[in-house]
Amino acid sequence: MRVERIDTIAALRARLAAARGSGKRIGLVPTMGALHKGHATLIARAREECDSVVVTVFVNPLQFDRADDLERYPRALDADLDLCDRLGADVVFVPSTTEMYPASPRCTIQVTGLGDELCGRYRPGHFAGMATVVMKLFQIVQADVAYFGEKDAQQLAIVRRLVADFNVPLTIVGVETVREADGVAISSRNQHLDRCERQLATALYQALGAARAAIEAGTRDPGGVRAAAIARIPADDRVRLEYLEAVDPDSMEPVPQILQPVIVAGALWVGRTRLIDNVRCTPPPLS
Amino acid sequence: MRVERIDTIAALRARLAAARGSGKRIGLVPTMGALHKGHATLIARAREECDSVVVTVFVNPLQFDRADDLERYPRALDADLDLCDRLGADVVFVPSTTEMYPASPRCTIQVTGLGDELCGRYRPGHFAGMATVVMKLFQIVQADVAYFGEKDAQQLAIVRRLVADFNVPLTIVGVETVREADGVAISSRNQHLDRCERQLATALYQALGAARAAIEAGTRDPGGVRAAAIARIPADDRVRLEYLEAVDPDSMEPVPQILQPVIVAGALWVGRTRLIDNVRCTPPPLS
Repeated sequence: MRVERIDTIAALRARLAAARGSGKRIGLVPTMGALHKGHATLIARAREECDSVVVTVFVNPLQFDRADDLERYPRALDADLDLCDRLGADVVFVPSTTEMYPASPRCTIQVTGLGDELCGRYRPGHFAGMATVVMKLFQIVQADVAYFGEKDAQQLAIVRRLVADFNVPLTIVGVETVREADGVAISSRNQHLDRCERQLATALYQALGAARAAIEAGTRDPGGVRAAAIARIPADDRVRLEYLEAVDPDSMEPVPQILQPVIVAGALWVGRTRLIDNVRCTPPPLS
Repeated sequence: MRVERIDTIAALRARLAAARGSGKRIGLVPTMGALHKGHATLIARAREECDSVVVTVFVNPLQFDRADDLERYPRALDADLDLCDRLGADVVFVPSTTEMYPASPRCTIQVTGLGDELCGRYRPGHFAGMATVVMKLFQIVQADVAYFGEKDAQQLAIVRRLVADFNVPLTIVGVETVREADGVAISSRNQHLDRCERQLATALYQALGAARAAIEAGTRDPGGVRAAAIARIPADDRVRLEYLEAVDPDSMEPVPQILQPVIVAGALWVGRTRLIDNVRCTPPPLS
């Protein structure tokens, strides 16, 4: 195997010092492991654009609001290392929880506004925990570019704002969501779905598609867009829509009227599994 | 004048890129201007230890809890530039408020625990605002070493923890407090004192000295130490002790018994001016 697995911050820094010193472009792909085609797209993009590609695999306890969700989060390190190797990554950084948090952190990132709506309303502390570990990874790797999936739209908006607010010397690249043939966004959580749930999961993408069609047809009232989307969610006990909103792509706050491009984002519970997805929608010009 | 004044982040980065590329050691001295002998000691220390010395002058609105205190904070940029030039600094970075905060930040540093006691109790939001701007300056300058005065003991403890918690690739150096002949710690705020207040200001250092003497004589009860200190504060309407506590040097939390080295820190109002100071004290070994 060509890819190098590194477990400590000191060893990672030593490994990257030479690359940095010689002006090489370092790309970072932060993940929680259980890598799938979505992550593969991020890694492949980093491989194209950078000299050194660092994939990090760390299931960050700080961003889980529920212990059972953390416990249940899939782990598959051997397969992850294989995939990174095949995609030509240089380093996979796999720190332990004590390596990342030798003591309970006293200084953390606070997210105001951007993290309040959508997922933030249902996962208290999630985005602060995510932003904190991402800031740590930025400091540890000191990459030139970091790659994030557009599937986690609110996460991406917050990471962009984190970098801007703190002047982190790094470029953020958002990469388009990878979907299955039936439109379902690829996610580590899909593997929790049984066959029937997997079929029900298509409802989220269909609802988002209906929202997009309504917006492109000129519906400017978010309530109307929402109604068009919700009509696509089947009346089934195993399915529950948590939220579905048209939001401003920068602030991630719901818009009162759809006059500019928006992101329509939704979260759907299918059985015990929570799925999220989003689409960008551009309304017709005002006549 | 040899020292270069730079006002924008982009220009500062361009100026430092060459130094960084050639492996030069960059030292950062973050200040709010109105430089005095205390700052001069920091700059001189950076000059000794680093190839490039960057002094930043920015009165950070985020760390002022009161508008009148921000308004009243002394500014003296021409004199600051002169001093930096004489001390051999390479760059003085003087960003505007809009350069540092083009928009109200959505991502900020939250400080838990370390910032609750002492000054934190009386200046809500102060340490979060300080930590936020310091983190920004770390990202902007990307220094190898940053210098902070021990006079602001709680600030120094928080900055050390900030760097540890986020793995910022930077060394923090704490520099001993510089004092006037009568023991008063040098501070930008001393210039607000009239002659009589300046005389009264000596009470803080005397109180801390009494606390140290009590600890070195074997007083292990913080209440006893406090009583010894407070006996040195004159009964004068113009003087009010805000706090005086023996705290753990890492956590900055009051200790129940003095068995290890502590910091005794105090804040004294003299007229309209708030002064802070602290001393390190080592108790005799337990027999």
